[in-house]
Amino acid sequence: MNTDMMFWFIPIAAVIALVFAFIFFKQLMKLDEGTDTMKKIAEHVRKGAMSYLKQQYKIVTIVFIIMAIFFSILAYGFGLQNEWVPFAFLTGGFFSGLAGFLGMKTATYASARTANAARKSLDAGLKVAFRSGAVMGLVVVGLALLDISIWYLVLDAFVEDADAKHKMIMITTTMLTFGMGASLQALFARVGGGIYTKAADVGADLVGKVEAGIPEDDPRNPATIADNVCDNVGDVAGMGADLYESYVGSILATAALGAAAFYGSQWSDDIQLKAVFAPMLIAALGIILSIIGIYLVKTKEGATMKQLLGSLGLGVNVSSILIAIGTFGIMYVLDIPNWQYVSFSVIIGLVVGIVIGQGTEYYTSHAYKPTQKIAESGKTGPATVIISGVGTVMISTAISVVAIVVGIILSYLFAAKFDFANLSAGLYGVGIAAVGMLSTLGITLATDAYGPIADNAGGNAEMAKLGDEVRQRTDALDALGNTTAATGKGFAIGSAALTALALLASYIEEIKIGLLRVGQTTMDVGGTVVNTAEATIVDFMTYYEVHLMNPKVLVGIFIGSVMTFVFAGLTMNAVGRAAEKMVVEVRRQFKEIKGILTGEAEPDYERCVAISTKGAQREMILPSAVAVLVPIITGIVFGVAGVMGLLVGGLSSGFVLAIFMANSGGAWDNAKKFVEEGNFGGKGSETHKATVTGDTVGDPFKDTSGPSLNILIKLMTMVSIVMAGLTGVYSIL
Amino acid sequence: MNTDMMFWFIPIAAVIALVFAFIFFKQLMKLDEGTDTMKKIAEHVRKGAMSYLKQQYKIVTIVFIIMAIFFSILAYGFGLQNEWVPFAFLTGGFFSGLAGFLGMKTATYASARTANAARKSLDAGLKVAFRSGAVMGLVVVGLALLDISIWYLVLDAFVEDADAKHKMIMITTTMLTFGMGASLQALFARVGGGIYTKAADVGADLVGKVEAGIPEDDPRNPATIADNVCDNVGDVAGMGADLYESYVGSILATAALGAAAFYGSQWSDDIQLKAVFAPMLIAALGIILSIIGIYLVKTKEGATMKQLLGSLGLGVNVSSILIAIGTFGIMYVLDIPNWQYVSFSVIIGLVVGIVIGQGTEYYTSHAYKPTQKIAESGKTGPATVIISGVGTVMISTAISVVAIVVGIILSYLFAAKFDFANLSAGLYGVGIAAVGMLSTLGITLATDAYGPIADNAGGNAEMAKLGDEVRQRTDALDALGNTTAATGKGFAIGSAALTALALLASYIEEIKIGLLRVGQTTMDVGGTVVNTAEATIVDFMTYYEVHLMNPKVLVGIFIGSVMTFVFAGLTMNAVGRAAEKMVVEVRRQFKEIKGILTGEAEPDYERCVAISTKGAQREMILPSAVAVLVPIITGIVFGVAGVMGLLVGGLSSGFVLAIFMANSGGAWDNAKKFVEEGNFGGKGSETHKATVTGDTVGDPFKDTSGPSLNILIKLMTMVSIVMAGLTGVYSIL
Repeated sequence: MNTDMMFWFIPIAAVIALVFAFIFFKQLMKLDEGTDTMKKIAEHVRKGAMSYLKQQYKIVTIVFIIMAIFFSILAYGFGLQNEWVPFAFLTGGFFSGLAGFLGMKTATYASARTANAARKSLDAGLKVAFRSGAVMGLVVVGLALLDISIWYLVLDAFVEDADAKHKMIMITTTMLTFGMGASLQALFARVGGGIYTKAADVGADLVGKVEAGIPEDDPRNPATIADNVCDNVGDVAGMGADLYESYVGSILATAALGAAAFYGSQWSDDIQLKAVFAPMLIAALGIILSIIGIYLVKTKEGATMKQLLGSLGLGVNVSSILIAIGTFGIMYVLDIPNWQYVSFSVIIGLVVGIVIGQGTEYYTSHAYKPTQKIAESGKTGPATVIISGVGTVMISTAISVVAIVVGIILSYLFAAKFDFANLSAGLYGVGIAAVGMLSTLGITLATDAYGPIADNAGGNAEMAKLGDEVRQRTDALDALGNTTAATGKGFAIGSAALTALALLASYIEEIKIGLLRVGQTTMDVGGTVVNTAEATIVDFMTYYEVHLMNPKVLVGIFIGSVMTFVFAGLTMNAVGRAAEKMVVEVRRQFKEIKGILTGEAEPDYERCVAISTKGAQREMILPSAVAVLVPIITGIVFGVAGVMGLLVGGLSSGFVLAIFMANSGGAWDNAKKFVEEGNFGGKGSETHKATVTGDTVGDPFKDTSGPSLNILIKLMTMVSIVMAGLTGVYSIL
Repeated sequence: MNTDMMFWFIPIAAVIALVFAFIFFKQLMKLDEGTDTMKKIAEHVRKGAMSYLKQQYKIVTIVFIIMAIFFSILAYGFGLQNEWVPFAFLTGGFFSGLAGFLGMKTATYASARTANAARKSLDAGLKVAFRSGAVMGLVVVGLALLDISIWYLVLDAFVEDADAKHKMIMITTTMLTFGMGASLQALFARVGGGIYTKAADVGADLVGKVEAGIPEDDPRNPATIADNVCDNVGDVAGMGADLYESYVGSILATAALGAAAFYGSQWSDDIQLKAVFAPMLIAALGIILSIIGIYLVKTKEGATMKQLLGSLGLGVNVSSILIAIGTFGIMYVLDIPNWQYVSFSVIIGLVVGIVIGQGTEYYTSHAYKPTQKIAESGKTGPATVIISGVGTVMISTAISVVAIVVGIILSYLFAAKFDFANLSAGLYGVGIAAVGMLSTLGITLATDAYGPIADNAGGNAEMAKLGDEVRQRTDALDALGNTTAATGKGFAIGSAALTALALLASYIEEIKIGLLRVGQTTMDVGGTVVNTAEATIVDFMTYYEVHLMNPKVLVGIFIGSVMTFVFAGLTMNAVGRAAEKMVVEVRRQFKEIKGILTGEAEPDYERCVAISTKGAQREMILPSAVAVLVPIITGIVFGVAGVMGLLVGGLSSGFVLAIFMANSGGAWDNAKKFVEEGNFGGKGSETHKATVTGDTVGDPFKDTSGPSLNILIKLMTMVSIVMAGLTGVYSIL
């Protein structure tokens, strides 16, 4: 087949994804939302969630306009950037926001319907919740490939370059910059959502449960709606934007690496084009296989936790195995040089994702010893819960890192045909491993987005006082969601690490384009003059002295490491401040609105939603500004060597810290659940109280700071990529 | 003056240090230990501490013999190492151990004498405690310079090389390897001591205070002696071995860098020799100035905390200012090229140390807002104490990192005469900044070692039931010790970071020697053949591809980052297990030995000491093995590129993590004290309980894992240096 023709599979798959998402959505909307109370509650949550997103998008729009103006000045005023960058940046942000919006809208429609379906059977409940999650999954992958396709067509039509292979490099490096928009949108979604989530949670618990003594999810609590909104805001919209960015980033970085790896005169234009298309085609096939997988998910009445996990696992595993086989087919048809080897890199990515997921499950599920031991340490009080949790989970980070390390080395070696010196091909392999890991995102993200829907369904059932049987079913669905959330976070972090690495490699390509843009056509590489356009990655490393004894590199690595701690600290403290405002408001309502506690008057839910919304928006500014400005300033002061140090330091330290925070939060949460199931004294015992403390500490770890670190890692790289034109040419030191 | 003659200042200063240490010790021994009870208690603690060290040295001896045999095989069997290495390694370990032993012996003689002196006046108490601490400080610097001097003389006499400048490189790189012995000894002291400390502490508190309801430091508690032993074991012997290692490491690394920087044909033999002697002469002058500073420390009755801090500060500051001036004198006399610039690097090191100390004080002392806020968050329970502590202290890490980063860049630029390309000279500047920071170790270590002595004096006064006035004085001395302990830890970490960087640079020199040893006299550097002996650092970076896009480097950095988390996790969990054994033993004694609680029977203190000793010894094996084996395995698998990645990743991540752990522990400790002083409800309130939880969590952070990370960073580098002969020549990938 003609290579150009193959391209069309990509937009077609994107459209198929969106069509199925639409079908699932329509099917959902046909279902009944249940009793009037159920409808009312769902309406409240929906309105709260939407008002949050509206507020968030307002601020984000302002930030995006400012940034776009800044990029326009760099591009049109100084010629330090591609003229397409401001537009690519804006569309990346727009599509990422759209994916989050649609996913969240679906989720808020789904919760009451899930609760209502659970009145019929467990299977019905599972299907409603899961397919609603699938809307999110398919919207993300569909919009991503659509965005990529459109930009490819636009740039292919407008970029002028006599040399076809050089044109392809221009196209792929330009497309990469729309990842910056997606990344920035994701940052606001994750940080804002994370702060919102915990502020509402703490506010509801502290004043409602502790001070007023009313149970969780009680409609008399003014913050209860905000509390239910938060799952949608943080876990659906936030997670969606996060993975949209990883997905787009991995595909585009790999495409850029492919264009660079097959640039030389020994390769035909056709082979270069194929290497660019390969990651997109794998993603396209992944969409189709994800849809098949989604249809496989079902369960039977009274299923155990293990069986429920098996139901989701069946869908995910079938998709994964098929994509592994399909990859060989794609690579064979494309006839990429050493296609068998490159295919193995894809499979390695898939396997690494699974290992990280399993490792996370082992260390965070109370079906296993580590979490049980943390629960047991609650017998001697809250301090020992924290100490043993920190100790155990610090050790657990080794699993994910070893998985990633082995994955990097193997995917590199396979794609480089076991020759370490074959740098471009090897790094292309690492990129394509990231694509492999994310290829089945359509279904894996469905299992993630499923969690908060099931959680909200449980809340809905509780508030609407549905029968015990129904609540047992929603509890089972909710518990399943907790596990998928933990493994989903491990997966998000793992894919972020591989993607960041691929992005780091394509940063070099951006630097190259930047040099050519200002007319620097030759470089002095250790005494030898090299054509900039033909310079290798190693040439760039030598030219910019990006070696480990260069103090600029070392200083960059130090800054990158500490950035992750500072960023995590800022987000943790932000939660505290936002929660305080919420506490004040809930107390005010209890005092001023007479009859709330007797159920005679309705609390002002909207105000609580508005307060945590505003708090989250205000608090997300500082950490976000730090994330954007530090790479820019480091670049201006220390140049390329400093920036690369910063990115590598941030990546390595942030990866470990993110896993630590996500896993510890999960482990403490489940340690508490283990005690609640009747172990070590059960609910209400001193051990239980100790584990509750652990759970509370873990909340901002796993829902705010940990997930935000993923984005920090990728955003810093994206900012550097967009600023590459400036950094490559000018720096103070 | 003849340069060779200048050398003799070094051993002379060493001897002066040891003579003054001996004088202070003799003066101490002349003092009365007080009442019979005081003597009895002191005797118990002394016996416990000695039995701990005896046990520890037994195990350490076995490990050292095994390692020495291993090095001998490498050296004599395969020629992959200098034949002096096994001996240098052993002496480094021996002197480090000896310094710890002498310091701790002094400390255990000093506590009762300090308590007894405090019966006279505050000034008398301060002087006894401080001068006993000074014994430790002077023994460390004295033995260090003595060890260096002797080895220099031996190697100068026995190393045969026609080229004087090449011989100097052989001498300095060989001497460097005795840092490995010191480092390994320090690891055991810090990890073992840290585990011991917290096991005894937790055991005493949990069963004695909580279960049996007897007060702290009560002689009826079987674990109370072990608890008093622990300060000596962890904070005196551990801290001493740690800083002995940093001190020796910084001097020797700088000497090696000096030998390398002035190796080329444009420099005379004399200039190279001067560059080697410079760090040693600065250290020698620092000894004399430290002794002067020690004599300046005194106070008056009823001094406030601020005045007490001022008393210690006077001594330290006078020494620091004089060394800053003296450095210019030394450099002028030596007439090192650009001596004015290099002198500034020394001053930068001193300033960085002060900034880190002040930053640590701001974030950990309850005189300032951050810690007060953490205390206030106790109003909403233990979870918020942990969350706000983690959040605030994560942000605080930025101060130390920025200080180090600015310090690295400035000391580099000054020594390189503002030319980034002047790599050898610049790195020599970083090394000499580390020497500057540590030059007044004689007195700064005295302020550190003073802390546990004052602490033990308080314990002694408490158990011996001395009057209120005396206890007020010992309390004041103890509180002063808490602050110096926190700043001392910041200082230890900061100096570890700079030293590690200097060691990293001298690792390259070791690789060079390794290549020459196996006869590889030329290297292919990017197509150009270079003489190995004349290869620059940049040549080595190119030859081994130590650039940031090399997957081996990246993988190394990942492993280094995660190593620090795993190591911290292992030590945290070790504390838990060792503490459990202690709890069981204390419970058994209360049950089986009738009459303990009524005071009729004496508890079996020795058994408790023996149990935490054994527990600590057993538990220190795994983390230590990890610290030694990971660099070796990384080297064998990934070669020089992987090892350098590992070291840089471990350094950047470990530095930040160590500061985080030390500062958070300190902040939680002082937040509790702030509440105990009557704020937010005072002692016994719910807020107090919440801050006690924070304090307990912080204990293993600040006393076990945090300080152990310092050593991990340096030990990994030292292991790599010793293994350089093998790694440089052979690796699997």
